[in-house]
Amino acid sequence: MKIILDGMGGDLAPTEVLKGAYEAVKELKISVIMTGDENRIKEAAKKESIPLDNIEIVNAPLVIPMDADPSLILKSYKESSMAKGLSLLAEGKGDAFVSAGSTGALLFGSTFIVKRIKGVKRPAIGTMIPTAKKKPYLLLDAGANHDCRSDMLKQFAFMGKAYCEGVLKIKNPSVALINIGTEEHKGDDLRKEAYQLLKAEKSLNFIGNAEARSLPLGECDIAVCDGFTGNIILKLSEGFGKFISISLKDILFANLSTKLSALVLKKRISAFKSLMDYKEYGGAPLLGVRKPVIKAHGSSDARAFKNAVRQAYFCVDGNICSKLEELLSQEKEAADVD
Amino acid sequence: MKIILDGMGGDLAPTEVLKGAYEAVKELKISVIMTGDENRIKEAAKKESIPLDNIEIVNAPLVIPMDADPSLILKSYKESSMAKGLSLLAEGKGDAFVSAGSTGALLFGSTFIVKRIKGVKRPAIGTMIPTAKKKPYLLLDAGANHDCRSDMLKQFAFMGKAYCEGVLKIKNPSVALINIGTEEHKGDDLRKEAYQLLKAEKSLNFIGNAEARSLPLGECDIAVCDGFTGNIILKLSEGFGKFISISLKDILFANLSTKLSALVLKKRISAFKSLMDYKEYGGAPLLGVRKPVIKAHGSSDARAFKNAVRQAYFCVDGNICSKLEELLSQEKEAADVD
Repeated sequence: MKIILDGMGGDLAPTEVLKGAYEAVKELKISVIMTGDENRIKEAAKKESIPLDNIEIVNAPLVIPMDADPSLILKSYKESSMAKGLSLLAEGKGDAFVSAGSTGALLFGSTFIVKRIKGVKRPAIGTMIPTAKKKPYLLLDAGANHDCRSDMLKQFAFMGKAYCEGVLKIKNPSVALINIGTEEHKGDDLRKEAYQLLKAEKSLNFIGNAEARSLPLGECDIAVCDGFTGNIILKLSEGFGKFISISLKDILFANLSTKLSALVLKKRISAFKSLMDYKEYGGAPLLGVRKPVIKAHGSSDARAFKNAVRQAYFCVDGNICSKLEELLSQEKEAADVD
Repeated sequence: MKIILDGMGGDLAPTEVLKGAYEAVKELKISVIMTGDENRIKEAAKKESIPLDNIEIVNAPLVIPMDADPSLILKSYKESSMAKGLSLLAEGKGDAFVSAGSTGALLFGSTFIVKRIKGVKRPAIGTMIPTAKKKPYLLLDAGANHDCRSDMLKQFAFMGKAYCEGVLKIKNPSVALINIGTEEHKGDDLRKEAYQLLKAEKSLNFIGNAEARSLPLGECDIAVCDGFTGNIILKLSEGFGKFISISLKDILFANLSTKLSALVLKKRISAFKSLMDYKEYGGAPLLGVRKPVIKAHGSSDARAFKNAVRQAYFCVDGNICSKLEELLSQEKEAADVD
């Protein structure tokens, strides 16, 4: 298997990307293509004494800025490290692509360079969010599409199913529609329509509406919503992670006796913190395009990059793209019968 | 001052409403009107040995069910305890109204019985949400209006300002627009338009867009959004409260030595839990109607009812309704000048 990595994406590129690539190559017995500034990557390899066995560098020094108009990836930035990586993926030179660069550009580039799976209306971003059950749920769309139609929400459920079954090995994952009430008639027109579409889809394990209150309690495997709502949920969850971390610090480091108690609790608190740590879950899969694409966090370090590559590996290994294509073809047939 | 209480609203009515009323009368030196089933309230008073000094009972035994169509408050439930309380408020028989009954019915009844302040497009529900700074922020709209226009979002900011200045005594409170990015051009058309309207309003201390990530960190006094998004934020925040409580229990009650540590931390953890406890903040003000109306939580106990009455007291004392009317009249003038 060969995973393509955007060597210039993220705050700590290219050094941490390279370190992550090296770890992934060792652990997963794969090979890697890194796109980016060849000189800088080779310098970093030398400085960090990282052997480049099974790491091929494809020179593409240009970097698309985080705040650039995403569509520029097809124009003035079509030679950038990200665009180059996506092109190599589209050409079949690798099996999946990982980037910590601009989400907008990655989404735009994936849609127009790698292209959508047949039948997919709009690709979505999935994100794993921790819960009190220690089993995260997959939130999607986490921010790709602000304005959604109900049929898009239904497709997000299929994307989630393909990912959960292929990568997380959850059989028949439960799907909830995020809404402002649990009853069938609740919410705006978008939710009401989506509810009926999801309910009618027999291949989905649709468990109905879920209020946001139930999400941190881990009552579903897949939570479906529009990208505006998803982005709010993702970021509020991140914010609560920080809130918890600040509050625990206040409680545990107040004085000498609380610090002694903190020592006793250290292991358990670390475990809790790592449960809340988004880096543990790898990156965010971009679902609905023809090959696996993973968006790594902008602040990813070597461990986060390695985890994102491992996630890409499992996407390839679990055939999520062909799984999704199959699910959507069944959906299409069902619609044709109606 | 006279506060009207819906004696039949909430899971623990009428006993806990009565106990709360009694405590409020004692603490605030006010009088109370309780609407509801006179026999049941008097029985509860006898059983709990609560004197009815300064508590007047107005018989209205009918209760509007939580799942009833809210508009029925004007029809088959126009004699209900909630409708009766709102009518008394509209007639000037009391200064504010508190109910733990159906939010939808209370919103509908307030709008059509008490009526809106001149110029208000749609009333909104405000809610205090705890933050790591130990100073909660006011979220609105927390669920009254799923579909909002940008001018409604601007008015929510004025409602928040009137409440923060009048009740919370925060001078020139900061207002943020909840969005999926901090830059001015971010978000959908609703957010872009609202941003410009808020920015143009010189009497508001508008600090720009806020991502949901920053909300639990307490970076604004007032957070403005549509009611769908607000309801998601409110409920997700509640869900995280539970998540934290479950996680702390897991950490602290794991074994004997963690339990001993928990003893040392007990006081601080209680303080943290009470920070997360929505009952501490009273109820949710319904803003934009002519008299103060407070929605108490459905599971309110005596303490929560007392806090909700105290909140109503401060709304009256702080003249929030005339403050809002004044702010909106200035807004109107400004618009006329344009």
